[in-house]
Amino acid sequence: MTATRIMLEESEIPKHWYNVIADMPNPPLPPLGPDGKPVGPEQMGVIFPDTILEQEMSGERWIAIPEEVREAYRLWRPTPLIRALRLERALGTPAKIYYKYEGVSPTGSHKPNSAVPQAYLNKIAGVKRLVTETGAGQWGSSLAFAGQMFGIAVRIYMVKISYDQKPFRRSMMQTWGAEVFASPSNMTNTGRKYLAENPDNEGSLGIAISEAVEEAASRADTKYALGSVLNHVLLHQTVIGLEAKKQLEKVGDYPDMIFAPCGGGSNFAGIAFPFFADKAAGKKVRLVAVEPTSCPTLTKGIYAYDYGDASGFTPLMKMYTLGHDFMPPGIHAGGLRYHGDSPLVSQLYHEKLIEAIAVPQVATFQAGVSCHAVRACIDEALRCKESGEPKTLLFNLSGHGHFDMASYDRYFAGKLEDYDYPVEAVKASLAHLPKVG
Amino acid sequence: MTATRIMLEESEIPKHWYNVIADMPNPPLPPLGPDGKPVGPEQMGVIFPDTILEQEMSGERWIAIPEEVREAYRLWRPTPLIRALRLERALGTPAKIYYKYEGVSPTGSHKPNSAVPQAYLNKIAGVKRLVTETGAGQWGSSLAFAGQMFGIAVRIYMVKISYDQKPFRRSMMQTWGAEVFASPSNMTNTGRKYLAENPDNEGSLGIAISEAVEEAASRADTKYALGSVLNHVLLHQTVIGLEAKKQLEKVGDYPDMIFAPCGGGSNFAGIAFPFFADKAAGKKVRLVAVEPTSCPTLTKGIYAYDYGDASGFTPLMKMYTLGHDFMPPGIHAGGLRYHGDSPLVSQLYHEKLIEAIAVPQVATFQAGVSCHAVRACIDEALRCKESGEPKTLLFNLSGHGHFDMASYDRYFAGKLEDYDYPVEAVKASLAHLPKVG
Repeated sequence: MTATRIMLEESEIPKHWYNVIADMPNPPLPPLGPDGKPVGPEQMGVIFPDTILEQEMSGERWIAIPEEVREAYRLWRPTPLIRALRLERALGTPAKIYYKYEGVSPTGSHKPNSAVPQAYLNKIAGVKRLVTETGAGQWGSSLAFAGQMFGIAVRIYMVKISYDQKPFRRSMMQTWGAEVFASPSNMTNTGRKYLAENPDNEGSLGIAISEAVEEAASRADTKYALGSVLNHVLLHQTVIGLEAKKQLEKVGDYPDMIFAPCGGGSNFAGIAFPFFADKAAGKKVRLVAVEPTSCPTLTKGIYAYDYGDASGFTPLMKMYTLGHDFMPPGIHAGGLRYHGDSPLVSQLYHEKLIEAIAVPQVATFQAGVSCHAVRACIDEALRCKESGEPKTLLFNLSGHGHFDMASYDRYFAGKLEDYDYPVEAVKASLAHLPKVG
Repeated sequence: MTATRIMLEESEIPKHWYNVIADMPNPPLPPLGPDGKPVGPEQMGVIFPDTILEQEMSGERWIAIPEEVREAYRLWRPTPLIRALRLERALGTPAKIYYKYEGVSPTGSHKPNSAVPQAYLNKIAGVKRLVTETGAGQWGSSLAFAGQMFGIAVRIYMVKISYDQKPFRRSMMQTWGAEVFASPSNMTNTGRKYLAENPDNEGSLGIAISEAVEEAASRADTKYALGSVLNHVLLHQTVIGLEAKKQLEKVGDYPDMIFAPCGGGSNFAGIAFPFFADKAAGKKVRLVAVEPTSCPTLTKGIYAYDYGDASGFTPLMKMYTLGHDFMPPGIHAGGLRYHGDSPLVSQLYHEKLIEAIAVPQVATFQAGVSCHAVRACIDEALRCKESGEPKTLLFNLSGHGHFDMASYDRYFAGKLEDYDYPVEAVKASLAHLPKVG
């Protein structure tokens, strides 16, 4: 009988995270200050502790996972790798479809993979309080959970439209003891500025990041935590791909193509980077980042130095961007509404080492789950049906959609619409890019 | 390092369900018709296929799990057994606390353990359409999922208060292709009768069962499915306890006490019955059913022949009951609001082979999760702290609370109140019991 769920033992949870920087053909471009000069650890130290910066800057291929973090991972890891036999049959494809399922975590997504080590690394650095932002709420609830686990107070700025649309995500964060405020809020200069311009501002990740960074920079007892984009976050997520590779080995398989949704990049990097190591060593594997057409950072943005937040508090990072003042439409894919992308993912895409495609949201719902990568994988499986190729496809199902059911209601009611972020808007937004790099 | 998550291989999914009837000191009392005579398969055959009735009536200790069902189980089984080390530390108890976690299933609860075999057994009997009821929505979504899997149309009568309070559960059922109606509905004689008496009737499981049974009995193409109470449902759920026992064996442990929430009995039977086999063979293990004080069937009801539904369409079953016209208050614990209990659980309780306790809902929320058994287990762990006894405790965490977050909001707002179902109301309700048995 073909294995459906491929499991690993607790002892097989990876002991190291994989750092893609070690295998990149070119070193990553450094973050810059507004003066165009590289930003050093002393400046970053205002919002991050040394324990985090050490990982952020590291070029080591393997970075040890602290035992305390592995112990926490064991609450839900190793996660299952599942062969989607029924989907294969329903599509009538000769392709084999596997997915790694991260929805079994306590918060229902892959985000605790980084929230837990971040809380731990802050704790051992003596930090008592963390502040962050959240879009759809996956990252916020994960940091709330991790903060509770290691005794760190957590405050969260939640993008207003999600704060209103997903009250239960908010309750979940409060259940784990975090404070949650709708962003833009009246608690920061950034928030007050946006509210003065438009009291009905629906918010964006860019604004929420500005609020969180502003607060962290202004309070000595508080550091900042980010749920995607940065090197150390992508590093933590590689437990996903490292496990998936081991699981595929157990059934003697290896993927031809890997699909993952790409917002800030942590989901994609988590499943794809460990396979990039093989690709760098000459192995044939295609890594495909899937993004929504309504926020087409890689496929329609440009590769430039830009701020990570709306107000320009963060260093400038070389990345694909739609412009830091990008104000996304109120689309479903809350977590994929970031104007930029991880610098590492951006550079690999720029160097044509990975691929990217954009899919519209209605087709995504037709794929049956709230996951853009599933749509892309189904499309590929249908192409295999045409061509007869028995490819092995792998996608990352980064979470369950239990807090997205309101969007399903809109989909069933025929009220969910596709939105192509217009090229003119991208161009207008990019006109404000800082002139550095 | 102490194991946190104890996993099994796919090949260790049980090959047989355990039938507690084989180990009961006295045979189960038969269901009776209104005439006081035992109801035979020919009468039950109106609403159930032979394949189900065969299991319902069986006295065999082990009943083989069909390969198609085991294949479907593999989507989420074996489920993890987790050592709650952090809870032990937080309580400072010498007790060891384990829980079996059924929330990893596609619908987030233990209910698909029976929905899948029921859909399969109906399919091989040639049934094309199933009708059922649901309270909180766990059973309804599980049957919708199972129906989708085996190509069977599913219609669900959902208790009105839950239909209104849990719109996303409803969307979930619709996502799996089921039709969902608020009960009482105007589609059945039963529903119309209750609506005529009170158009704002909030519904009850008893009424919803009557509606579903009425429809199944009146349509030749349709059979009925029940998510708890009956022998075959409890049988299917024993995969939980069979796995848990094997998992505890792996770490060389055995429970002193087992706790599970008890509404209709399927959750409790699932984890506890396989250990009853050991108890029957002389082993010391205490099995504790935990119910809400607002619906105290075992702890305040009486052991008598009563109907399973509000209208009296079902056979009379000997069980602990609050009376079939019990109209529960609109409490949180939607799934535990059934007037009766499984006849098997009832008989074991009556014969003092298992125990039962009732806990109030505010204390349940203080225990941090929407699960009455957790509260009971914590209370026992705290007693162990007093006495110094290093007991091994096991509870069944039958699902995640992602669709119960509205109740958490009420709890945080201080609006959640305890409700002791008054003894006078129990007495009044029991006055209407049929005079048989």
